[in-house]
Amino acid sequence: MKINILGCYAATPRTLTNPTSQVLEIKDHLFLIDCGEGTQVHLRKNKIKFSRINHIFISHLHGDHFFGLPGLISTFRLLGRDREMHIYGPKGIKEAMTLLLKLGDSWTNYQLVFHELTSKEPELIYDDDKVTVETIPLNHRVYTNGFLFKEKLAERKLNIEAVAKYKIDKAYFQNIKNGKDIELDNGSTIPNAVLTFNPAKPKSYAFCSDTSYKPAIVPQIKNVDVLYHESTFLKSEIHLVAKTKHTTATQAGLIAKAADVGTLILGHYSTRYKSIELFKEEALEVFENVELADDGKVFEFK
Amino acid sequence: MKINILGCYAATPRTLTNPTSQVLEIKDHLFLIDCGEGTQVHLRKNKIKFSRINHIFISHLHGDHFFGLPGLISTFRLLGRDREMHIYGPKGIKEAMTLLLKLGDSWTNYQLVFHELTSKEPELIYDDDKVTVETIPLNHRVYTNGFLFKEKLAERKLNIEAVAKYKIDKAYFQNIKNGKDIELDNGSTIPNAVLTFNPAKPKSYAFCSDTSYKPAIVPQIKNVDVLYHESTFLKSEIHLVAKTKHTTATQAGLIAKAADVGTLILGHYSTRYKSIELFKEEALEVFENVELADDGKVFEFK
Repeated sequence: MKINILGCYAATPRTLTNPTSQVLEIKDHLFLIDCGEGTQVHLRKNKIKFSRINHIFISHLHGDHFFGLPGLISTFRLLGRDREMHIYGPKGIKEAMTLLLKLGDSWTNYQLVFHELTSKEPELIYDDDKVTVETIPLNHRVYTNGFLFKEKLAERKLNIEAVAKYKIDKAYFQNIKNGKDIELDNGSTIPNAVLTFNPAKPKSYAFCSDTSYKPAIVPQIKNVDVLYHESTFLKSEIHLVAKTKHTTATQAGLIAKAADVGTLILGHYSTRYKSIELFKEEALEVFENVELADDGKVFEFK
Repeated sequence: MKINILGCYAATPRTLTNPTSQVLEIKDHLFLIDCGEGTQVHLRKNKIKFSRINHIFISHLHGDHFFGLPGLISTFRLLGRDREMHIYGPKGIKEAMTLLLKLGDSWTNYQLVFHELTSKEPELIYDDDKVTVETIPLNHRVYTNGFLFKEKLAERKLNIEAVAKYKIDKAYFQNIKNGKDIELDNGSTIPNAVLTFNPAKPKSYAFCSDTSYKPAIVPQIKNVDVLYHESTFLKSEIHLVAKTKHTTATQAGLIAKAADVGTLILGHYSTRYKSIELFKEEALEVFENVELADDGKVFEFK
């Protein structure tokens, strides 16, 4: 599982700081999460193949999280895309994108499939044989969802030496990987545990931005391997969180601690501070495993 | 008169090439012309003061000419702008920008004044005591206007030595600058030409992008000091101009020659070519004074 941070700063794009966008690589999928202005350029800078992106998740309809989307949709057309593109985001996103394309008398030669979100409860919005994606309802100034990405438990791994030893025909391999025991011709039974290894533990990633401090999300994100949580402010600016519905680094750390996550990645920093290290220092006071997102940074979890 | 090229490449923004946007500095105005994705970042990189921009001219509603506009509008709000912002562009631009702001439950604390354009004939769309702006109807795949910016003739310049010599009271200075002769107490008349110098010749700038080859614009842009004309293709790709409604470098040169302009600036290059110098070489075959726009380049005309 790999997280490629294209942009992780709050508000307007600046010369050296990009608005929110990241690419999650999970089980051969490239999921694009949020799409601030300039995302398509940052995808290129980070050498991410446009054609591998088939699903885009938009948390909310503030500009710094989706004003790069119309340009990206247009660019996919210019690149000759023909595969469906699925876009998950708040209701209204379809009307906006469609209007912008219509005004330019433009079209897409691939199918755009919008999955508009309105529920205030967690919803399963994507499910295939390897991965699921659920919404994490957040509390921001407009309707906002985080997203919880979970790998499914993979099939068991064949112990090549063991199956050779018992001379098991490969016609049985899929059954073995599915966890079945095997009866040999001599009538004895070889337990599955002898023939297989445990598969890798499924990984999970929760993306939570933008939101005010919302402990109600803790049960849903309990024990995730990685939590990306916004921390727009330091605690010195806690007087700003109620109005802006953002979070301090301390609050992000408290969520991570309560959910007992593996790693907390902080992001969505206000550009008022002179160093993002300050966010890490603050979160470390309440939670031990803190990383700082930064534009162009890649986190890999094996 | 100064033209700051923020972006001048066709189609999608890339790592090293920006879509169309430029800032024209003329008689203390900063006019923003087109606003492709990323324009606000390029304004910052080129150290252009956001607060000095009060008028934005959008040629047409293809993404590479206006997808930077919603982000810029939002950023003006974050910067605490309170002055009116005037936006000139094709009908539909107001609906699009309003929808994008509404979806984010956003607002502007300054007034946005949209001037929606629909005419297929040249129109005077801006007029103050120093400058006029007219549309130049172009021929592209969607409704498109170029823009013709003209300085007005300034008042005559006072000849300080001459007015001192004739001991003329400064109460008469404005009359003199307006071109009046002066009668002295002794009854003799001093002709205005003795008391003043000619003002600088008013400058003019025509921005023409995107368009197919359209000689019908020549009378309107006759003798402009500077013509920016798109040249998406070289003549080797002339088979593409009918479908895409773009221009070759040769055709841009022919327009410049027929209009007898001072300087032709080429731009809106397709990124298929290995060097933009090829555009200059081609246009020079038909017109002698050719410059190449490039991102970050500034042209000054004194």
